[in-house]
Amino acid sequence: MASKGKVISCRAAVAYGPGQPLVVEQVQVDPPQKMEVRIKILFTSICHTDLSAWKGESEAQRAYPRILGHEASGVVESVGEGVIDMKEGDQVVAIFNGECGERIYCKSSKKTNLCGKFRVNPFKSVMESDGKCRFRNKDGIPIYHFLNTSTFTEYTVVDSACLVKIDSHASLDKMTLLSCGVSTGLGAAWNTADVQTGETVAVFGLGAVGLAVVEGARTRGASKIIGVDINPEKRIKGEAIGITDFINPKEIDVPVHEGWGMAIVLGIHPTPKLLSLHPMELFDGRRIVASVFGDFKGKSQLPFLAEQCMAGVVKLDEFITHRLPFEKINEAFQLLLDGKSLRCLLHLS
Amino acid sequence: MASKGKVISCRAAVAYGPGQPLVVEQVQVDPPQKMEVRIKILFTSICHTDLSAWKGESEAQRAYPRILGHEASGVVESVGEGVIDMKEGDQVVAIFNGECGERIYCKSSKKTNLCGKFRVNPFKSVMESDGKCRFRNKDGIPIYHFLNTSTFTEYTVVDSACLVKIDSHASLDKMTLLSCGVSTGLGAAWNTADVQTGETVAVFGLGAVGLAVVEGARTRGASKIIGVDINPEKRIKGEAIGITDFINPKEIDVPVHEGWGMAIVLGIHPTPKLLSLHPMELFDGRRIVASVFGDFKGKSQLPFLAEQCMAGVVKLDEFITHRLPFEKINEAFQLLLDGKSLRCLLHLS
Repeated sequence: MASKGKVISCRAAVAYGPGQPLVVEQVQVDPPQKMEVRIKILFTSICHTDLSAWKGESEAQRAYPRILGHEASGVVESVGEGVIDMKEGDQVVAIFNGECGERIYCKSSKKTNLCGKFRVNPFKSVMESDGKCRFRNKDGIPIYHFLNTSTFTEYTVVDSACLVKIDSHASLDKMTLLSCGVSTGLGAAWNTADVQTGETVAVFGLGAVGLAVVEGARTRGASKIIGVDINPEKRIKGEAIGITDFINPKEIDVPVHEGWGMAIVLGIHPTPKLLSLHPMELFDGRRIVASVFGDFKGKSQLPFLAEQCMAGVVKLDEFITHRLPFEKINEAFQLLLDGKSLRCLLHLS
Repeated sequence: MASKGKVISCRAAVAYGPGQPLVVEQVQVDPPQKMEVRIKILFTSICHTDLSAWKGESEAQRAYPRILGHEASGVVESVGEGVIDMKEGDQVVAIFNGECGERIYCKSSKKTNLCGKFRVNPFKSVMESDGKCRFRNKDGIPIYHFLNTSTFTEYTVVDSACLVKIDSHASLDKMTLLSCGVSTGLGAAWNTADVQTGETVAVFGLGAVGLAVVEGARTRGASKIIGVDINPEKRIKGEAIGITDFINPKEIDVPVHEGWGMAIVLGIHPTPKLLSLHPMELFDGRRIVASVFGDFKGKSQLPFLAEQCMAGVVKLDEFITHRLPFEKINEAFQLLLDGKSLRCLLHLS
């Protein structure tokens, strides 16, 4: 492309302080360095982790100015030196939990999907290679990166380890959901719990991630999928996706199985609250584990998930509840804050 | 045997109240009922769970008079109706965590080793079949059972699900340790963690169970076995069994691996103290699980462990630190209370 090797001027939504409305303004985006890729983002969406960072809930998150966002799809604009698995025009999905493929973590086949180099690190706000930012605002001030991705912008630069190339026929709008929420929930059912046909799954909290767990359990043939939420309105959406039962814990206690079973904790919890459990609660065969990005190794395994979505095995339509143009990003934040949206897709072009 | 079908009069160590010295006295032992077995105990040893019950640490444990004890080996004196897998004279080891083989828990191949019928239940103090006791003291008062076994007696009656027949050439004294402590620790390494050659294992607390974890890790070829204990004297015994490193957490912090790994909680914890953890501590790939009886299905899998002990693959000698005649049982309790013994073997004949 004509822009290759040059600084690109484009629109981005910049966070200047905790809880302040994002400012949609012109920014400068540097060309990709070695092993980096610059992409033109076509769709981005908002996840609760963006909300938490936007509010600046923890000290680590208060780096400004910053471009938030980590769910996005787009096309490759140009690649840096050494990038051989992607080229200009390829369709890609951003992943905050990278796969460098080089270190012991990535080389472990099943032990972990964490990447030694591009893992989830809320303190990290610059590029891995040179510790610098690829964004500047109109005053020439560097703009910080977020979760290895920074997707609330028309163009972004990310390490190639944090991009997954997907089929050129895939509908990019839906594929945006694979960046985080849907993969996280669905993968918890497929990979972490490895749900088998006929098993029972209880999902606590029917937001986008919880509903993706429901979709994962449904596609695995779970015979009973119990949705648990204190908001009775969640029942309708839950049933549309696949819950067979609904429990409001404000009305009745949730019974828990003894002997075996796994409790999986999903997502980032900035709260200082601790989980308190008695060792004997584990004694009866319960297991407590966490799952990051649905235990998917992104570059290796997301293309298969994308195929399953394209083939209609995994259904994504129910997760996109709203669509807005990019400049209405603050409105989209409000929808999520108010619990009105699962995912609001922002269109960038 | 001549005693078959008759009440046997023999010596037992009876607990009459929390923390009171056990009374070694004559008791009456009824014949075994349907699916029960009466055994002559030759060796029994004391585990911390016996100590805890003896102290009456929880309300549930305060059922008196009671015959405690759950680690024992002996020979079958007679069998009740329907018992076909054991006969008079067979060498057996008692297991508190039974294997009825009938219900969904026992039929699950790998999901759990808990038994739906004969599981660990501190509230249970009578026989399963008729809710009665098989022991009476000299005043004709029924004496309660303990942990499906009650082994501080020359004769006891247990459900056949709670006995494992072992090779007739096995040395019964050592086999006593398979009833609980050694199986619990060793199985945590073999079955729960499934330690692989070259892996690293950290063991917190080098009592008998912890040292059995060390033995399990050593026999699996772990390359680094870190013993962790606040008592520096534990280092010597640890090294004799197989630790490669020793950490006293009062001197230095214990570093913990990120990315993968499993923390296994072993044993019964009557303490009201809760484990507090932050969800993010799980986020980096850690797992917290519990393991009961080393995840062994007793009747199915202990004969193999016994063979491994007989073949010298698993070494048991270091675990027997003391031997005393049965009537000195209160002395043996004191040795364990004082942290002086790992296992004190009580000889009954």
